[in-house]
Amino acid sequence: MKKANKKINAALIIIGNEILSGRTQDINVMNLSKWLNELGVKVEEVRIVPDNEIAIVHTVNFLRKRFNYVFTTGGIGPTHDDITSKSIAKAFNLKYEKHKEAYQLLKSYYGSKNFNTGRKKMTMIPEKAKLILNPASAAPGFIVDNVYCLPGVPSILKSMLGGLNNKIIGGKKIYNKTINIKTVESEIAAPLEKTQKKYKNIEIGSYPFFKNGNIGVSIVIRSSEKNIINKCCNEIKKFIKKKKLKFWEEIK
Amino acid sequence: MKKANKKINAALIIIGNEILSGRTQDINVMNLSKWLNELGVKVEEVRIVPDNEIAIVHTVNFLRKRFNYVFTTGGIGPTHDDITSKSIAKAFNLKYEKHKEAYQLLKSYYGSKNFNTGRKKMTMIPEKAKLILNPASAAPGFIVDNVYCLPGVPSILKSMLGGLNNKIIGGKKIYNKTINIKTVESEIAAPLEKTQKKYKNIEIGSYPFFKNGNIGVSIVIRSSEKNIINKCCNEIKKFIKKKKLKFWEEIK
Repeated sequence: MKKANKKINAALIIIGNEILSGRTQDINVMNLSKWLNELGVKVEEVRIVPDNEIAIVHTVNFLRKRFNYVFTTGGIGPTHDDITSKSIAKAFNLKYEKHKEAYQLLKSYYGSKNFNTGRKKMTMIPEKAKLILNPASAAPGFIVDNVYCLPGVPSILKSMLGGLNNKIIGGKKIYNKTINIKTVESEIAAPLEKTQKKYKNIEIGSYPFFKNGNIGVSIVIRSSEKNIINKCCNEIKKFIKKKKLKFWEEIK
Repeated sequence: MKKANKKINAALIIIGNEILSGRTQDINVMNLSKWLNELGVKVEEVRIVPDNEIAIVHTVNFLRKRFNYVFTTGGIGPTHDDITSKSIAKAFNLKYEKHKEAYQLLKSYYGSKNFNTGRKKMTMIPEKAKLILNPASAAPGFIVDNVYCLPGVPSILKSMLGGLNNKIIGGKKIYNKTINIKTVESEIAAPLEKTQKKYKNIEIGSYPFFKNGNIGVSIVIRSSEKNIINKCCNEIKKFIKKKKLKFWEEIK
């Protein structure tokens, strides 16, 4: 896995009326973010936009100039509401045309007899785009410059990530550690703020949770420097013990 | 419930590093979208941004001028990483100050003895903001102009929506109908596109699904006109029967 010596970031664009209407619960943000974290790429913005060419073109063109990587999900299937490929071509001012490699691939996957209009539509891709292979259901995603276009169905999307591991050049991996405490946030707010001020370059998050009728707080420490995370953790544990609060080890 | 005679839209801003890192699965988009649908408000864009003042201020100021309503979730708790209230004050160029009503409310909820610094922080709200009451855990959300700020914990957020029903003036309610078929998308792509071209003002979406090893497609028809949905549905059912495809009634 290649590595860059600086911070590498990404934006995600989730395309689909079904997410905006609340019909479908998105889980691609979580899956992509976790995968990118492992590669040393930090997701810094997500936008969910409708199946609308103007919205997609605008969003892609805005984000691709500001982030190292942009990933889109959704809208590359065979039906009329799948307009991502055409919109990406428009965003890059490229021809939207039959992609020879994709055409051969799907023709041999479905067989000439079953290679209908809908399936042929999935071979219409911006000119010169590189394909992202799909081991689950053949229809490929594609890459134009720093924009990676993936399908919306989570299981198919996930099957395609393995093939991208060597294409993404990440920066330093971001590590994290979680401390769970049996308390409420307001109880630890003051010492936690003090710790954050001392460790300016690490990210400390505080998240309340409810489990089996009990209240707890997860403190999450994130940084690319493992030893600083450990140092910071020890400091947090110290003030928790001093306050006589209890840890909640069994919660992840 | 008051009603506007035009289309009313909204944007959601999900604030939180924990969503962007993939640590926490967001479900507020789905809950807010469904609730807003019922009120006749269509969510047309969602942005997920980090706990970063510049990002929040920019996003709020961009979206509040372009959408009838903006809802934010997250970042109104007692800890150092809760910076939504301060950022909203900055976005509107308002003072970030102790809100008298919120202060009285939380003081009597916690009692003077337990009203610590963290809890007092939750009464710091942009000046003149109207409160959104919180029947689950007292700490209020607030409204500035067309921006509604809600907490990130889904159960608390949901408990606060009931109090907003009469404050949101929606447009026509958007209805939807779903037809589930035992087939693959490419099989119905051509006639479905023809139907969409005929019914330009309704939204037809096609979504593949997998259940118990079987493949199906959900066709979702959305519009504010119930009778046009029914007409369109009948047309779709007609071509499905003509193609001798089977319905999958038991799936919602």
